[in-house]
Order: sequence, then C-alpha cells, then structure tokens
Amino acid sequence: MNENKLTWAIIGGGNGGQAAAGHLGVLGFKVRLFDIIPETIMAINKQGGIHVEGAVNGFGKVELATIDIKQAVLGADIIMIVAPALAHKTIAKNLVPHLTDGQIIFIHPGATFGALEVRKVLDDEGCKADVVIAEALSLLYACRASKPGTASIKGIKNDLLVAAIPAAKTNEVVKKLNQAFPQMVSGKNVLETSLNNLNAVMHPAPSLLNTSMIESKHEWKYYWDGITKSVGAFVENLDKERIALGKALGLELPSVLELYKVLYNAEGETLSDAVKRNAAYAEIIGQKRIDTRYILEDIPMGLVPMVSLAKKLGVPCERMETVCKLGSFVLNKDLISNGRTLENLNLHETNLEEFLKYINTGSKAS
Amino acid sequence: MNENKLTWAIIGGGNGGQAAAGHLGVLGFKVRLFDIIPETIMAINKQGGIHVEGAVNGFGKVELATIDIKQAVLGADIIMIVAPALAHKTIAKNLVPHLTDGQIIFIHPGATFGALEVRKVLDDEGCKADVVIAEALSLLYACRASKPGTASIKGIKNDLLVAAIPAAKTNEVVKKLNQAFPQMVSGKNVLETSLNNLNAVMHPAPSLLNTSMIESKHEWKYYWDGITKSVGAFVENLDKERIALGKALGLELPSVLELYKVLYNAEGETLSDAVKRNAAYAEIIGQKRIDTRYILEDIPMGLVPMVSLAKKLGVPCERMETVCKLGSFVLNKDLISNGRTLENLNLHETNLEEFLKYINTGSKAS
Repeated sequence: MNENKLTWAIIGGGNGGQAAAGHLGVLGFKVRLFDIIPETIMAINKQGGIHVEGAVNGFGKVELATIDIKQAVLGADIIMIVAPALAHKTIAKNLVPHLTDGQIIFIHPGATFGALEVRKVLDDEGCKADVVIAEALSLLYACRASKPGTASIKGIKNDLLVAAIPAAKTNEVVKKLNQAFPQMVSGKNVLETSLNNLNAVMHPAPSLLNTSMIESKHEWKYYWDGITKSVGAFVENLDKERIALGKALGLELPSVLELYKVLYNAEGETLSDAVKRNAAYAEIIGQKRIDTRYILEDIPMGLVPMVSLAKKLGVPCERMETVCKLGSFVLNKDLISNGRTLENLNLHETNLEEFLKYINTGSKAS
Repeated sequence: MNENKLTWAIIGGGNGGQAAAGHLGVLGFKVRLFDIIPETIMAINKQGGIHVEGAVNGFGKVELATIDIKQAVLGADIIMIVAPALAHKTIAKNLVPHLTDGQIIFIHPGATFGALEVRKVLDDEGCKADVVIAEALSLLYACRASKPGTASIKGIKNDLLVAAIPAAKTNEVVKKLNQAFPQMVSGKNVLETSLNNLNAVMHPAPSLLNTSMIESKHEWKYYWDGITKSVGAFVENLDKERIALGKALGLELPSVLELYKVLYNAEGETLSDAVKRNAAYAEIIGQKRIDTRYILEDIPMGLVPMVSLAKKLGVPCERMETVCKLGSFVLNKDLISNGRTLENLNLHETNLEEFLKYINTGSKAS
C-alpha cells in the first residue's frame, strides 16, 4: 500500500456505499466504512472487506467497518456520504464533533442543495474545523449490494459533475477525488450539480401519475410502462421550468431529453420514446407502493428547493410546485415545509448577487 | 293525448336526451328533440319517435326531431338541456332569440353553476323573455343510446335534486317537472345542486392519478381498479374541501362516501372499499385516453367554479386547486381561465350576502 494515498471514510453501507468502499479498496486506498446496521458492519469486518464484481472485479480491503462514526472519520482525508438525502442532516450533525481541518466532506450524491444543507448544519452546530463540502450530481455507479460484503457494480459513469461550496474550492476537491475517480469533473458551482438532479424530474411526477398502476395487481416497468405519452410530455414541460431556473442563475442546463442521449445513447423525439430506447431501463421494475423515496426524498430534497429558488427569482415553476403539493396531498404528509427551502437553509434573505457570492466564495457578507 | 299536458323540447340527442325524450313520449307528453347531428334527427323522424327499453319500456312518440332549435322550442313549456356542460353556453346563446315568457329552461344536469352560466348568457344577450332557469344535480337516468332512435334505460334515480335561479321559483318549477318526473325534488338553491356535482370529485383526480393506467395496454375498471387506496384517500380529503365550502354557504352537504351509501347501498370504511361494493360499477370500464370529459368538462365546469367560490370565501381548497392545475398541465390546455369562475359569471364583485341574495331572489341590487 502506498502510504501517500488518501484515506477514505465511507458513510453509508447500502448499495452505493459498499460499491464505493469495495472499489476504493480494490484501487488500494485506505478505507473505513460507517453504517448503523450492525449486520452489515459485522459481515464486512468478518471478511475484512468487500467483494466487488461486474464493472470492477476483486476484493477491496476495508480497514475498519464500524457503527461508531468517530472511528470512521478520524484521520480520514475524504468523508464520502453515500446515503439517502433524508439522512444527510442527521449524518452532518453526527460528524461535527469529529471533523478536523483539511477534511473534505463529499456528498455522493447530494440530491438538490445537499452541500448547502450540510454547510448549514456545520454552521449551526458551531463547527470550528476548516472543511470543504462538495457534492456529486448523481451516484457514480449503477450497482446493487446483493448481500452485506458483496457489491455488484453494473456500470460506472464516464463523467460525473462535482462541485464544492464554495465553488472556489471545487478544483482542489476534484483533484483529490481524481486520485481514485478520474471520472469526476469540476462543475461550475453547487447550483449546477443541484439543478441537474434528474431524480427530481424523473421520479415524483411519474410516480404520482402512476398511482393506480403502483397500487394495481400489474407488474410494470418504471420507465418503459410508466413514462407514457402524457406522463412524458408533462415531465418535459416540468423540465423546462428547471432549465429556465438554471438560465436565471447563469447556467446552461441540458434538458432531460438531451441527457438521455448523452448518458444512455437513448434518442427519441419525446421523452416517452427516449426511455424506451434505453435498454438498461428494461430491468427497472416499478414500485408497488406510493410512499417511497421517489416521492418522500425527491420532492423535499429535489423539487422543493428548486421551487423555493424559482419563486425567489420570479421564475415560473407551477408544474414543479403542483407536483410538490400533489405529493404532499396524496401521501397526506407535508413534504414542503421540511424540505430544502431557502428559508430552511437560512438563505432566504439574500438577494441574487449575495446568494451567488455565497455559492462561489462562501462569504455571506455583502 | 291530454291537451293540458306540457310540451317538452329536449335539447341534445345523446344517451340522456334520447332517454328523456323517449320516456316523456311513453308518458304521453308532447315532445320535440333538437340535435346537431342529422343522422340522429333523421332516424328519429323516420320512425316517429324513440324505442325505450329497460326500466321504461315502449315507444315514445316524438312530435318533431330537428336540427333547427327554433322549431324545437317554439311553444314548448319546458326546454330541457341534456348536453355536455361544455355546450351549455353555446346552446343558451342559440336559444335566446326564440325564448318566450313563461318558459322553463331545465339543465339536466347542470354540472356546477350551469344555471348561473345560462342566466349570464341570457343577460348578456339581452334576453327580454321572462324565463326561469333550473338545474338538476345529475342525470335522472343510467342509460345508453344503443343506436339513434333506441334508448336503453338501465336505471332511474329515486330522488333527484332540482333548483331554480332564483331559488324562490324552485317549487313552481319542480311542480311542473313532477307532472312527468315525480322523482324530482326541490333543492335549497342552485348552490346545493351545483356543489353536489359528484363528477367534480370522482372524475378529474382519479383520472389524473390513473394517467399511466389510461395509456397502458391494460383493460381496467374505472372505479374498481381506478379508486385504489391512495386515490380514494386523496379523493376523500378533496371532498372535505367541497363540504367545507358548502358549510360556508349554509349547506350541509353529504360526503361522497355517505352518498354512495344512499345512492348505491354501497358501504365501506373508505371510498376505495365502498366503490367495490357497488355492483353497478363492475361494468364501468376505464377510459383509454386522458383527454375526455372526465377532465375537459369536470375541471372547468366542476372543480374550477368550486375553487373560485372557495377562494372568494377564504375556504381552503388546495387539493381541488392542485387538481385543476395538474389537469391543465397534463392536457397542456388551460382548463381554468375559461371555466365557470365567478369572474366569468360576472359575480366576482358581489360579497357573500349579495351573492346569496342573487341566488335566492335573482336580484343583484344590494
């Protein structure tokens, strides 16, 4: 083992966390893994690491798997959070007492405003350590953890946008991440990574418009059956609100239809056509209940922050807002008030200039 | 034929119109029928009436079927409009030049605010005739017109609420209607008939939450498959907004769940359960396209007027409003601006007291 190599703490032992830990182990990095499920931890410690198969093959040594977050992060160079966005706040809170100068918190992925939320928690908790927070726009892997200690990596993305808060630190962070992951490239700022969170576009609206299908006796494929002509058309129009929001912030965001072409080589006149030309989507089975992360996470940590920002800037966002409300009503649960709004991030009193300054330099002073 | 019997002009030769015309003919009334489709008119004239089967059996003589509305209404006592709510405005406009004192325009059914809309058209067109406008809360029949000239009446409701604008005229109108239809009973006012338009509750939201099912390869039953647990729960909560609106207007409206018990003897803890205990619903097949009257009519002529009134009165109506917006977005068509809003009925500047006075007495003066 190269003693100059970075030490990574992976926070989260689900599919993505085990894939990342196993992959990093195979690459020869020092790896620790934290999770709250003792069975996962024990299985990994028992075999001393994670078996990885698929796009990466081998045994990735894991120095330590633990349910004690302190042990995982002590001396780590990069703390990689691979967890549901709903858990980011709690994880950040638990990290604070153990953070030290120079560490990087890398949220992989951050959903929308993940880095901003973690930054807010650190500030609220009076964190004194000089750390940089970064987020990726999605998960690097298409993967499944078949059982604790084994990760099946079906695919690795060629490019993955990463940005830090403040943006001035992005290149420095990406340079470090590149030691393990050459796929990671610098985004303009966390607005670019956050507003390219396609889960916000592709999950809540189609799920809600599929409510009866979800609760039916039918087996169905999420994209192939769920993105019907009308569902696809609605999503494309909702996506235009996201793109307009980006424009108002100086970003040229690709449309979801354009991204399908780039990411999956799936072209079509319409979104409904395009998803059917993505062979990988043949395997994605539709959910059998309505209260899943596709709504519970992708509304409060996806659409809600976009709506909050769009309203602040006067950008029309009625489709996104309608989906947020509908999701709250169908699940009979307020998914908006507790979401990542500008208010909840304590950024509602900044104007556009101050907001962009904070995003880019980290300074709130005007 | 009894010369004292009323003369009826039926406006609309669809399922309901032919059932009503045939039924009235069987009962020995003088009947004329207007429709815009020449084939329907020719078929009825050729046989001199309408064959009726089912709950009513016989041949109902039709004095005249015509595509000339003037000929149909000249000398008619009761002008019964049995047509899609989207057509009410045009029909009213076409009626104006031919109306005479003492005629009753009976909208069967009026959807929501049908009588108010027709009244507005008559006022705008400078109608000088002293006519009374009334509306029924739904269609008296469960029926199907198998071919032009034959109506199959599967069922006749035991009670059907009718109200006139002004409400002071309701008893007089119902007395006349009772000469043919003892089932018709006086409602408090057109707010009671309009706010009990259950299509507004049972059609748009379930259709939208069934979008993917509608556009799927599956055959499905509208109520049995479409009102899933989550769809039913959403509709019940939306229905509470309707009931609260009624309360603000002095009406004790039954819930949709209570009405299922009364109308169909279908009881259940939840709406999703109750619809499955209504055997008649086994036959109701789900639509195969999203742009049907269930949205195109029941939003602008159902939910939109309820939302408009609720906002005026400060009654929460977010679920209803969300469905109106979602329908507009999914169909990519503005279903709100052209709906029966208080603005479009020129009633937006009245306060509650003036509004109720107008509903009850027909006078707008305060």
